[in-house]
Amino acid sequence: MDPAWFQVRVRVQRTINMKDNLVTGDIGLAHGSGGRKTGRLIKDLFLKHLGNPIANRMEDAAELPAQGTRIALTTDSHVVQPLFFPGGDIGRLSICGTCNDLAVKGAKPRFITAGFILRAGLRAETLEKIVVSMAEELHKANVLLVAGDTKVIETGEVEECYITTAGFGVLEHNSTFAPERIEAGDKVIVSGTIGDHEAAVLLSRQDFGFEHHIKSDVANIWPLVSALIDAEIDIKAMRDPTRGGLATTLNELSTACGKAVLIKEGHVPFSSEVKAAAEMLGLDLYYLASEGRLLAIVNEKDAEKAVEILQAYPQARDAAIIGEVHDDGQGLWLETLLGSQRPLLILEGEQLPRIC
Amino acid sequence: MDPAWFQVRVRVQRTINMKDNLVTGDIGLAHGSGGRKTGRLIKDLFLKHLGNPIANRMEDAAELPAQGTRIALTTDSHVVQPLFFPGGDIGRLSICGTCNDLAVKGAKPRFITAGFILRAGLRAETLEKIVVSMAEELHKANVLLVAGDTKVIETGEVEECYITTAGFGVLEHNSTFAPERIEAGDKVIVSGTIGDHEAAVLLSRQDFGFEHHIKSDVANIWPLVSALIDAEIDIKAMRDPTRGGLATTLNELSTACGKAVLIKEGHVPFSSEVKAAAEMLGLDLYYLASEGRLLAIVNEKDAEKAVEILQAYPQARDAAIIGEVHDDGQGLWLETLLGSQRPLLILEGEQLPRIC
Repeated sequence: MDPAWFQVRVRVQRTINMKDNLVTGDIGLAHGSGGRKTGRLIKDLFLKHLGNPIANRMEDAAELPAQGTRIALTTDSHVVQPLFFPGGDIGRLSICGTCNDLAVKGAKPRFITAGFILRAGLRAETLEKIVVSMAEELHKANVLLVAGDTKVIETGEVEECYITTAGFGVLEHNSTFAPERIEAGDKVIVSGTIGDHEAAVLLSRQDFGFEHHIKSDVANIWPLVSALIDAEIDIKAMRDPTRGGLATTLNELSTACGKAVLIKEGHVPFSSEVKAAAEMLGLDLYYLASEGRLLAIVNEKDAEKAVEILQAYPQARDAAIIGEVHDDGQGLWLETLLGSQRPLLILEGEQLPRIC
Repeated sequence: MDPAWFQVRVRVQRTINMKDNLVTGDIGLAHGSGGRKTGRLIKDLFLKHLGNPIANRMEDAAELPAQGTRIALTTDSHVVQPLFFPGGDIGRLSICGTCNDLAVKGAKPRFITAGFILRAGLRAETLEKIVVSMAEELHKANVLLVAGDTKVIETGEVEECYITTAGFGVLEHNSTFAPERIEAGDKVIVSGTIGDHEAAVLLSRQDFGFEHHIKSDVANIWPLVSALIDAEIDIKAMRDPTRGGLATTLNELSTACGKAVLIKEGHVPFSSEVKAAAEMLGLDLYYLASEGRLLAIVNEKDAEKAVEILQAYPQARDAAIIGEVHDDGQGLWLETLLGSQRPLLILEGEQLPRIC
């Protein structure tokens, strides 16, 4: 489940023009971008009809009032094109995406279901590569796939396959990650460079005429989350900055807690290649999706320790404190290298469709 | 989750020619039919890589070894075309399909997740109708949608939307529905007329030049299952005869229990309109999918009582005992009105694609 689904309440409180009714007429690609239009679609259409106290909490995974143990459920559909990209593929993404939605709730991923929608003409060899990739990732994550379904739709122009996974996890600790717990002074942490996934997918769509070694960061972040929990880091809230990127995710957290978030330009880790690619292609780095990064708001006293713990993992060697929470005002602000501050709004329209 | 996913082990034991490797080359529409090709795809590709003791049980829903309570997980993708058909729509189907996969395991549906893949160009009004339909069905079923996700893919020729739902249910009783418990003498029961769903979808695709009032039978069967459990009916196994129809479902049960199943032509309930349509269109009634029927194998002593209980529900007023289990031989046999017996094999290829 994408955070976008449940963070819509956040968006409708924003002061930007919300009058245009985006959910009449045709669904456009921007409705799948994770930005404002996705938000409107979810709030004004899906939650309008399907909302309930659990769904309305708008979390990455739904914590269920179960018997004895705290459990969490989530779902995520994957439609990435191309199916294979440097650093990953739709299979790996479909497992990591759902594990990560559980992980950012503090839930240990245990079981996964997968619904496959295959386009006739997809080569079985292609599908097998995808499934092998899922199996490898499940094995690494120690998660069981327990149910599946397959449907086939008519031929298209390219090989296509959509995978919807649902995940079931358990909360084995007593802490609650909830934006309501965010206080002024709390620090913002990311577990690594931002935007590698979206850059890798974009660059694998066509040849832009420059060489690069950019790979998707797609990975299961549960080992990182688990290490932070075990070390009793006071985690106030956690997200994975997927569609809409760091800027959209932090805007959502800011509105959810009613406080301002300030991040510092030089502190946000980007790979030099992603930076160069974004510059050449006119993309805003702060809106590029990652698929294997965690974004946490932690108690100030634990921030340095949290970063140290993360950096011990190869997948998080670039972990950093990137900013902090303030109680004057709202929204997300970027302190530039020159010391000036500018607001970073929620993603408008789409940056790049079908990145996950 | 479609039974087809997990009933593949059944199929590969069959003696029909299994040598042609169906999972090399292109995926075809028959791979989504719920018949033999779907089975091969699942067994030789999906389960080959993703199999585990829970998945390999090949049940409609996966029972999870949870803390304290017995819980079940399932998933089902829905790609039906057209999106709306007499008696239902993809929204209603997406809720009922998943509730029913839980119900036939004896699990009470509690929570559902939904992943929407929308085709750009889908009208928001269309989507809203679908979502309203889901909401109505969830309300009726007393099931909560707790997580969702939305992705948008490029424009197509027709309005399209795919919905993958995952369901979480609890088993509040001590009985186990498992084909291993089937014995000679057990009776086969269905809860109503067979094939209405597939006939309704087919007839709404184009005008075949005859008037009819055929409606899909799509419905949540949990109330029926619950009533049978409460009455302590000794249920040996249960399925919902969706893709592949009655013949495929009973073949799978026959192989799973290692016994023969005999059904009697005059006893299987079909609506006269579905019968007439199947005759005109050259379709085999025994392979037509239902989406709101249960198929149960029950202890002989409880069979009459079970049918009486079912008939008290409007959705099951045509419930009937349609056959019985024998311990001489294997497979599914049809006793015709003339008294002769002919085998009904598992569905080969496809009858009609995208019915669910």
